[in-house]
Amino acid sequence: MSSSNALDGLTQALRKLPGVGAKSAARMAFHLLQHDRPAALQIASALEHAVGSIRHCAMCNTLSEMEICNVCSSGQRDRSKLCVVETPADQHAMERTRAYKGLYFVLMGKLSPLDGIGPRDIGLQKLFDRVVPRDEQGEPLSEDSREVQEVILATNFTAEGEATAHVIGQALKSRGVQVTRLARGVPVGSELEYVDLGTIAHALVDRR
Amino acid sequence: MSSSNALDGLTQALRKLPGVGAKSAARMAFHLLQHDRPAALQIASALEHAVGSIRHCAMCNTLSEMEICNVCSSGQRDRSKLCVVETPADQHAMERTRAYKGLYFVLMGKLSPLDGIGPRDIGLQKLFDRVVPRDEQGEPLSEDSREVQEVILATNFTAEGEATAHVIGQALKSRGVQVTRLARGVPVGSELEYVDLGTIAHALVDRR
Repeated sequence: MSSSNALDGLTQALRKLPGVGAKSAARMAFHLLQHDRPAALQIASALEHAVGSIRHCAMCNTLSEMEICNVCSSGQRDRSKLCVVETPADQHAMERTRAYKGLYFVLMGKLSPLDGIGPRDIGLQKLFDRVVPRDEQGEPLSEDSREVQEVILATNFTAEGEATAHVIGQALKSRGVQVTRLARGVPVGSELEYVDLGTIAHALVDRR
Repeated sequence: MSSSNALDGLTQALRKLPGVGAKSAARMAFHLLQHDRPAALQIASALEHAVGSIRHCAMCNTLSEMEICNVCSSGQRDRSKLCVVETPADQHAMERTRAYKGLYFVLMGKLSPLDGIGPRDIGLQKLFDRVVPRDEQGEPLSEDSREVQEVILATNFTAEGEATAHVIGQALKSRGVQVTRLARGVPVGSELEYVDLGTIAHALVDRR
Protein backbone atom coordinates (compact mmCIF):
# COMPACT_ATOMS: atom_id res chain seq x y z
CA MET A 1 0.00 0.00 0.00
CA SER A 2 1.10 3.56 -0.28
CA SER A 3 2.55 4.89 2.96
CA SER A 4 -0.30 6.21 5.11
CA ASN A 5 0.15 7.86 8.49
CA ALA A 6 -3.26 6.73 9.71
CA LEU A 7 -2.54 3.13 8.71
CA ASP A 8 0.94 3.15 10.26
CA GLY A 9 -0.47 4.73 13.40
CA LEU A 10 -3.12 2.03 13.66
CA THR A 11 -0.57 -0.75 13.14
CA GLN A 12 1.70 0.74 15.81
CA ALA A 13 -1.21 1.07 18.24
CA LEU A 14 -2.38 -2.52 17.69
CA ARG A 15 1.12 -3.78 18.53
CA LYS A 16 0.43 -2.73 22.12
CA LEU A 17 -2.01 -5.63 22.42
CA PRO A 18 -0.41 -8.55 24.27
CA GLY A 19 0.86 -11.26 21.93
CA VAL A 20 0.53 -9.08 18.81
CA GLY A 21 3.69 -8.42 16.79
CA ALA A 22 4.33 -6.31 13.72
CA LYS A 23 2.91 -8.84 11.25
CA SER A 24 -0.26 -9.59 13.20
CA ALA A 25 -0.86 -5.89 13.79
CA ALA A 26 -0.59 -5.13 10.08
CA ARG A 27 -2.89 -8.04 9.28
CA MET A 28 -5.46 -6.76 11.79
CA ALA A 29 -5.28 -3.22 10.44
CA PHE A 30 -5.70 -4.34 6.82
CA HIS A 31 -8.53 -6.68 7.73
CA LEU A 32 -10.49 -4.07 9.65
CA LEU A 33 -10.08 -1.34 7.04
CA GLN A 34 -10.65 -3.60 4.05
CA HIS A 35 -13.40 -5.89 5.32
CA ASP A 36 -14.90 -4.80 8.62
CA ARG A 37 -14.99 -1.08 9.36
CA PRO A 38 -18.03 -1.41 11.64
CA ALA A 39 -16.01 -3.80 13.83
CA ALA A 40 -13.19 -1.24 14.00
CA LEU A 41 -15.57 1.40 15.33
CA GLN A 42 -17.16 -1.12 17.69
CA ILE A 43 -13.76 -2.03 19.16
CA ALA A 44 -12.88 1.65 19.52
CA SER A 45 -16.05 2.48 21.41
CA ALA A 46 -15.84 -0.67 23.57
CA LEU A 47 -12.29 0.32 24.58
CA GLU A 48 -13.31 3.85 25.45
CA HIS A 49 -16.38 2.71 27.35
CA ALA A 50 -14.41 0.10 29.32
CA VAL A 51 -11.60 2.50 30.23
CA GLY A 52 -14.15 5.10 31.28
CA SER A 53 -16.38 2.85 33.35
CA ILE A 54 -14.23 0.05 34.80
CA ARG A 55 -12.31 0.62 38.02
CA HIS A 56 -11.08 -1.51 40.91
CA CYS A 57 -13.52 -2.86 43.50
CA ALA A 58 -12.88 -1.05 46.79
CA MET A 59 -13.06 -4.33 48.72
CA CYS A 60 -11.28 -6.92 46.57
CA ASN A 61 -9.43 -4.89 43.89
CA THR A 62 -10.97 -6.77 40.95
CA LEU A 63 -12.13 -4.94 37.84
CA SER A 64 -15.66 -3.67 38.33
CA GLU A 65 -18.03 -1.04 37.04
CA MET A 66 -19.29 -0.41 40.56
CA GLU A 67 -17.60 0.86 43.74
CA ILE A 68 -18.11 -2.64 45.20
CA CYS A 69 -18.11 -5.55 42.71
CA ASN A 70 -20.96 -8.05 42.25
CA VAL A 71 -19.19 -10.78 44.16
CA CYS A 72 -18.30 -8.65 47.20
CA SER A 73 -21.79 -7.17 47.39
CA SER A 74 -23.60 -10.47 46.86
CA GLY A 75 -25.68 -11.94 49.67
CA GLN A 76 -25.22 -15.42 48.18
CA ARG A 77 -21.51 -15.85 48.93
CA ASP A 78 -19.82 -17.47 51.92
CA ARG A 79 -18.17 -14.44 53.54
CA SER A 80 -16.03 -16.57 55.88
CA LYS A 81 -13.80 -17.69 53.00
CA LEU A 82 -11.38 -15.39 51.17
CA CYS A 83 -9.52 -16.58 48.08
CA VAL A 84 -6.31 -14.66 47.25
CA VAL A 85 -5.47 -14.48 43.51
CA GLU A 86 -2.87 -12.55 41.53
CA THR A 87 -5.08 -10.98 38.86
CA PRO A 88 -8.71 -10.39 37.85
CA ALA A 89 -8.10 -12.97 35.09
CA ASP A 90 -7.21 -15.58 37.72
CA GLN A 91 -10.38 -14.72 39.62
CA HIS A 92 -12.32 -15.12 36.37
CA ALA A 93 -10.86 -18.63 35.96
CA MET A 94 -11.85 -19.53 39.54
CA GLU A 95 -15.39 -18.23 39.00
CA ARG A 96 -15.84 -20.24 35.83
CA THR A 97 -15.28 -23.46 37.80
CA ARG A 98 -18.45 -22.67 39.80
CA ALA A 99 -16.76 -24.65 42.58
CA TYR A 100 -16.10 -21.72 44.90
CA LYS A 101 -18.73 -19.67 46.72
CA GLY A 102 -16.57 -17.46 48.96
CA LEU A 103 -15.12 -14.00 48.41
CA TYR A 104 -11.89 -12.90 46.74
CA PHE A 105 -8.93 -10.65 47.27
CA VAL A 106 -7.03 -9.68 44.12
CA LEU A 107 -3.38 -8.78 44.68
CA MET A 108 -1.90 -5.93 42.67
CA GLY A 109 0.69 -8.33 41.24
CA LYS A 110 3.09 -10.75 42.86
CA LEU A 111 6.20 -10.40 44.97
CA SER A 112 9.26 -10.05 42.79
CA PRO A 113 12.28 -8.82 44.81
CA LEU A 114 14.50 -8.75 41.71
CA ASP A 115 12.12 -6.25 40.11
CA GLY A 116 11.86 -4.31 43.37
CA ILE A 117 8.25 -5.36 43.98
CA GLY A 118 7.75 -5.87 47.70
CA PRO A 119 4.80 -6.57 50.03
CA ARG A 120 3.70 -2.94 50.02
CA ASP A 121 3.48 -2.74 46.21
CA ILE A 122 1.02 -5.62 45.92
CA GLY A 123 -1.26 -4.41 48.70
CA LEU A 124 -0.53 -7.05 51.35
CA GLN A 125 -1.25 -4.63 54.22
CA LYS A 126 -4.75 -4.09 52.82
CA LEU A 127 -5.22 -7.88 52.77
CA PHE A 128 -4.03 -8.24 56.37
CA ASP A 129 -6.33 -5.41 57.52
CA ARG A 130 -9.21 -7.13 55.75
CA VAL A 131 -8.56 -10.53 57.32
CA VAL A 132 -7.60 -9.31 60.81
CA PRO A 133 -9.43 -6.01 61.36
CA ARG A 134 -8.73 -3.88 64.41
CA ASP A 135 -11.26 -2.71 66.98
CA GLU A 136 -11.80 0.87 68.13
CA GLN A 137 -8.81 0.69 70.46
CA GLY A 138 -6.57 -0.37 67.57
CA GLU A 139 -6.28 -3.94 68.86
CA PRO A 140 -6.66 -6.86 66.40
CA LEU A 141 -10.04 -8.57 66.67
CA SER A 142 -9.99 -11.98 68.34
CA GLU A 143 -10.28 -15.05 66.12
CA ASP A 144 -13.94 -15.68 66.98
CA SER A 145 -15.16 -12.20 66.07
CA ARG A 146 -13.48 -12.06 62.65
CA GLU A 147 -15.58 -12.40 59.49
CA VAL A 148 -12.91 -14.24 57.45
CA GLN A 149 -12.24 -17.69 58.90
CA GLU A 150 -10.19 -19.23 56.08
CA VAL A 151 -7.83 -17.72 53.52
CA ILE A 152 -7.30 -19.84 50.39
CA LEU A 153 -4.07 -18.99 48.57
CA ALA A 154 -4.61 -19.31 44.81
CA THR A 155 -1.56 -17.47 43.52
CA ASN A 156 0.11 -19.07 40.51
CA PHE A 157 2.33 -22.12 40.92
CA THR A 158 5.34 -20.23 39.60
CA ALA A 159 8.39 -19.29 41.66
CA GLU A 160 7.03 -15.80 42.28
CA GLY A 161 3.50 -17.00 42.98
CA GLU A 162 4.79 -19.62 45.43
CA ALA A 163 6.95 -17.01 47.18
CA THR A 164 3.96 -14.68 47.43
CA ALA A 165 1.81 -17.49 48.86
CA HIS A 166 4.56 -18.35 51.36
CA VAL A 167 4.89 -14.78 52.63
CA ILE A 168 1.12 -14.30 52.97
CA GLY A 169 0.73 -17.71 54.60
CA GLN A 170 3.43 -17.03 57.21
CA ALA A 171 2.06 -13.60 58.06
CA LEU A 172 -1.54 -14.75 58.41
CA LYS A 173 -0.75 -17.92 60.36
CA SER A 174 1.16 -15.81 62.90
CA ARG A 175 -2.06 -13.82 63.32
CA GLY A 176 -4.01 -17.00 64.02
CA VAL A 177 -5.77 -17.28 60.63
CA GLN A 178 -6.47 -20.64 58.97
CA VAL A 179 -4.59 -20.62 55.63
CA THR A 180 -4.88 -23.19 52.84
CA ARG A 181 -3.30 -23.50 49.39
CA LEU A 182 -4.81 -24.93 46.18
CA ALA A 183 -3.77 -28.58 45.81
CA ARG A 184 -0.89 -29.40 43.52
CA GLY A 185 -1.37 -32.56 41.53
CA VAL A 186 -1.89 -34.24 38.20
CA PRO A 187 -4.09 -32.16 35.85
CA VAL A 188 -7.47 -33.68 35.03
CA GLY A 189 -7.42 -35.59 31.73
CA SER A 190 -3.64 -35.96 31.57
CA GLU A 191 -1.61 -39.15 31.18
CA LEU A 192 1.03 -39.78 33.85
CA GLU A 193 3.65 -40.53 31.21
CA TYR A 194 3.54 -36.92 30.04
CA VAL A 195 3.22 -35.14 33.39
CA ASP A 196 6.40 -33.49 34.71
CA LEU A 197 8.16 -35.21 37.60
CA GLY A 198 7.74 -32.38 40.10
CA THR A 199 3.98 -32.52 39.65
CA ILE A 200 3.87 -36.30 40.11
CA ALA A 201 6.04 -36.02 43.25
CA HIS A 202 3.68 -33.42 44.71
CA ALA A 203 0.64 -35.51 43.79
CA LEU A 204 2.22 -38.49 45.57
CA VAL A 205 2.98 -36.52 48.75
CA ASP A 206 -0.50 -34.96 48.78
CA ARG A 207 -2.30 -38.23 47.91
CA ARG A 208 -5.67 -38.68 49.51
CA MET B 1 -13.90 -11.13 37.97
CA SER B 2 -17.39 -10.07 38.73
CA SER B 3 -19.56 -9.98 35.65
CA SER B 4 -19.18 -6.58 33.98
CA ASN B 5 -21.03 -5.47 30.88
CA ALA B 6 -18.25 -3.15 29.80
CA LEU B 7 -15.65 -5.90 30.16
CA ASP B 8 -17.80 -8.48 28.35
CA GLY B 9 -18.51 -5.94 25.62
CA LEU B 10 -14.81 -5.25 25.18
CA THR B 11 -13.98 -8.96 25.04
CA GLN B 12 -16.70 -9.56 22.46
CA ALA B 13 -15.50 -6.63 20.36
CA LEU B 14 -11.86 -7.77 20.43
CA ARG B 15 -12.91 -11.18 19.10
CA LYS B 16 -13.67 -9.46 15.80
CA LEU B 17 -9.93 -9.04 15.25
CA PRO B 18 -8.64 -11.69 12.84
CA GLY B 19 -6.95 -14.60 14.62
CA VAL B 20 -8.29 -13.61 18.04
CA GLY B 21 -10.49 -16.14 19.88
CA ALA B 22 -12.32 -15.98 23.19
CA LYS B 23 -9.24 -16.63 25.34
CA SER B 24 -6.97 -14.16 23.56
CA ALA B 25 -9.68 -11.51 23.62
CA ALA B 26 -10.16 -11.91 27.38
CA ARG B 27 -6.39 -11.77 27.89
CA MET B 28 -6.17 -8.57 25.83
CA ALA B 29 -9.04 -6.95 27.72
CA PHE B 30 -7.59 -7.82 31.13
CA HIS B 31 -4.13 -6.69 30.10
CA LEU B 32 -5.29 -3.32 28.79
CA LEU B 33 -7.53 -2.54 31.77
CA GLN B 34 -5.10 -3.82 34.39
CA HIS B 35 -1.77 -2.66 33.00
CA ASP B 36 -2.06 -0.30 30.05
CA ARG B 37 -5.10 1.95 29.90
CA PRO B 38 -3.28 4.62 27.88
CA ALA B 39 -2.69 1.99 25.18
CA ALA B 40 -6.40 1.16 25.17
CA LEU B 41 -7.30 4.78 24.48
CA GLN B 42 -4.52 5.04 21.89
CA ILE B 43 -5.85 2.00 20.02
CA ALA B 44 -9.39 3.40 20.17
CA SER B 45 -8.38 6.74 18.71
CA ALA B 46 -6.13 5.15 16.06
CA LEU B 47 -9.06 2.99 14.94
CA GLU B 48 -11.44 5.94 14.74
CA HIS B 49 -8.88 8.08 12.93
CA ALA B 50 -8.07 5.34 10.42
CA VAL B 51 -11.72 4.55 9.66
CA GLY B 52 -12.46 8.24 9.28
CA SER B 53 -9.52 9.12 7.05
CA ILE B 54 -8.60 6.05 5.01
CA ARG B 55 -10.44 5.31 1.78
CA HIS B 56 -9.68 3.56 -1.50
CA CYS B 57 -7.41 5.21 -4.09
CA ALA B 58 -9.56 6.18 -7.07
CA MET B 59 -6.96 4.80 -9.49
CA CYS B 60 -5.67 1.56 -7.93
CA ASN B 61 -8.16 0.80 -5.08
CA THR B 62 -5.48 0.53 -2.40
CA LEU B 63 -6.02 2.02 1.05
CA SER B 64 -5.06 5.68 1.04
CA GLU B 65 -5.73 8.89 2.91
CA MET B 66 -5.81 10.80 -0.37
CA GLU B 67 -8.10 10.62 -3.41
CA ILE B 68 -5.10 9.30 -5.37
CA CYS B 69 -2.51 7.31 -3.40
CA ASN B 70 1.20 8.15 -3.13
CA VAL B 71 2.22 5.47 -5.60
CA CYS B 72 -0.29 6.40 -8.31
CA SER B 73 0.50 10.12 -7.99
CA SER B 74 4.28 9.65 -7.85
CA GLY B 75 6.43 10.97 -10.70
CA GLN B 76 9.12 8.39 -9.87
CA ARG B 77 7.24 5.27 -10.97
CA ASP B 78 7.32 3.44 -14.28
CA ARG B 79 3.76 4.04 -15.51
CA SER B 80 4.05 1.46 -18.30
CA LYS B 81 3.94 -1.43 -15.79
CA LEU B 82 0.83 -2.39 -13.82
CA CYS B 83 1.01 -5.04 -11.11
CA VAL B 84 -2.31 -6.71 -10.19
CA VAL B 85 -2.62 -7.86 -6.56
CA GLU B 86 -5.50 -9.20 -4.48
CA THR B 87 -5.26 -6.94 -1.44
CA PRO B 88 -3.56 -3.80 -0.09
CA ALA B 89 -1.55 -6.15 2.16
CA ASP B 90 -0.18 -7.94 -0.92
CA GLN B 91 0.77 -4.59 -2.42
CA HIS B 92 2.49 -3.73 0.87
CA ALA B 93 4.55 -6.94 0.60
CA MET B 94 5.51 -6.10 -3.01
CA GLU B 95 6.53 -2.57 -2.00
CA ARG B 96 8.74 -3.82 0.81
CA THR B 97 10.85 -5.77 -1.69
CA ARG B 98 11.85 -2.44 -3.29
CA ALA B 99 12.25 -4.49 -6.46
CA TYR B 100 9.26 -3.03 -8.32
CA LYS B 101 8.94 0.52 -9.57
CA GLY B 102 5.72 0.35 -11.60
CA LEU B 103 2.11 1.02 -10.59
CA TYR B 104 -0.49 -1.26 -9.01
CA PHE B 105 -4.08 -2.32 -9.38
CA VAL B 106 -5.67 -3.81 -6.26
CA LEU B 107 -8.56 -6.19 -6.93
CA MET B 108 -11.53 -6.11 -4.60
CA GLY B 109 -10.93 -9.77 -3.73
CA LYS B 110 -10.50 -12.86 -5.89
CA LEU B 111 -12.77 -14.87 -8.12
CA SER B 112 -14.61 -17.50 -6.13
CA PRO B 113 -17.53 -18.96 -8.12
CA LEU B 114 -18.56 -21.20 -5.20
CA ASP B 115 -19.08 -18.10 -3.05
CA GLY B 116 -20.81 -16.33 -5.94
CA ILE B 117 -17.95 -13.87 -6.46
CA GLY B 118 -17.59 -13.20 -10.18
CA PRO B 119 -15.56 -10.84 -12.38
CA ARG B 120 -17.86 -7.91 -11.72
CA ASP B 121 -17.55 -8.16 -7.93
CA ILE B 122 -13.77 -7.83 -7.93
CA GLY B 123 -13.68 -4.88 -10.31
CA LEU B 124 -12.23 -6.54 -13.40
CA GLN B 125 -14.02 -4.14 -15.77
CA LYS B 126 -12.32 -1.21 -14.05
CA LEU B 127 -8.98 -2.97 -14.59
CA PHE B 128 -9.72 -3.59 -18.28
CA ASP B 129 -10.77 0.05 -18.78
CA ARG B 130 -7.56 1.15 -17.11
CA VAL B 131 -5.31 -1.04 -19.26
CA VAL B 132 -7.18 -0.60 -22.55
CA PRO B 133 -8.84 2.83 -22.42
CA ARG B 134 -11.25 3.91 -25.12
CA ASP B 135 -10.95 7.03 -27.27
CA GLU B 136 -13.66 9.63 -27.77
CA GLN B 137 -15.45 7.45 -30.32
CA GLY B 138 -15.58 4.60 -27.80
CA GLU B 139 -12.97 2.56 -29.68
CA PRO B 140 -10.18 0.84 -27.70
CA LEU B 141 -6.85 2.68 -28.02
CA SER B 142 -4.28 0.97 -30.22
CA GLU B 143 -1.42 -0.84 -28.50
CA ASP B 144 1.12 1.92 -29.19
CA SER B 145 -0.92 4.73 -27.67
CA ARG B 146 -1.71 2.92 -24.37
CA GLU B 147 0.08 3.95 -21.19
CA VAL B 148 0.21 0.44 -19.67
CA GLN B 149 2.50 -1.82 -21.71
CA GLU B 150 2.83 -4.77 -19.34
CA VAL B 151 0.46 -6.24 -16.74
CA ILE B 152 2.18 -8.32 -14.05
CA LEU B 153 -0.21 -10.75 -12.35
CA ALA B 154 0.71 -11.07 -8.67
CA THR B 155 -2.43 -12.71 -7.32
CA ASN B 156 -1.81 -15.42 -4.74
CA PHE B 157 -0.66 -18.89 -5.78
CA THR B 158 -3.80 -20.48 -4.41
CA ALA B 159 -6.51 -22.14 -6.48
CA GLU B 160 -8.63 -18.97 -6.43
CA GLY B 161 -5.68 -16.66 -7.06
CA GLU B 162 -4.53 -18.81 -9.98
CA ALA B 163 -8.04 -18.84 -11.45
CA THR B 164 -8.23 -15.07 -11.09
CA ALA B 165 -4.85 -14.67 -12.82
CA HIS B 166 -5.97 -17.00 -15.60
CA VAL B 167 -9.18 -15.10 -16.30
CA ILE B 168 -7.42 -11.70 -16.28
CA GLY B 169 -4.58 -13.04 -18.41
CA GLN B 170 -6.92 -14.46 -21.07
CA ALA B 171 -8.99 -11.29 -21.25
CA LEU B 172 -6.01 -8.95 -21.51
CA LYS B 173 -4.08 -11.08 -24.01
CA SER B 174 -7.13 -11.06 -26.29
CA ARG B 175 -6.92 -7.25 -26.16
CA GLY B 176 -3.27 -7.33 -27.22
CA VAL B 177 -1.73 -6.59 -23.82
CA GLN B 178 1.55 -8.16 -22.67
CA VAL B 179 0.77 -10.18 -19.55
CA THR B 180 3.29 -11.80 -17.18
CA ARG B 181 2.95 -13.77 -13.96
CA LEU B 182 5.26 -13.83 -10.91
CA ALA B 183 7.66 -16.77 -11.22
CA ARG B 184 6.89 -19.93 -9.31
CA GLY B 185 9.93 -21.62 -7.82
CA VAL B 186 11.90 -22.60 -4.77
CA PRO B 187 11.72 -20.01 -1.97
CA VAL B 188 14.97 -18.22 -1.16
CA GLY B 189 16.77 -19.81 1.78
CA SER B 190 14.91 -23.11 1.60
CA GLU B 191 16.37 -26.62 1.34
CA LEU B 192 15.13 -28.72 -1.59
CA GLU B 193 14.46 -31.67 0.72
CA TYR B 194 11.69 -29.73 2.46
CA VAL B 195 10.13 -27.99 -0.55
CA ASP B 196 6.87 -29.46 -1.81
CA LEU B 197 6.99 -31.43 -5.04
CA GLY B 198 4.70 -29.15 -7.04
CA THR B 199 6.99 -26.22 -6.35
CA ILE B 200 10.09 -28.17 -7.39
CA ALA B 201 8.37 -29.32 -10.58
CA HIS B 202 7.46 -25.72 -11.45
CA ALA B 203 10.99 -24.54 -10.66
CA LEU B 204 12.35 -27.22 -12.99
CA VAL B 205 10.04 -26.27 -15.87
CA ASP B 206 10.73 -22.56 -15.40
CA ARG B 207 14.53 -23.02 -14.96
CA ARG B 208 16.72 -20.27 -16.40
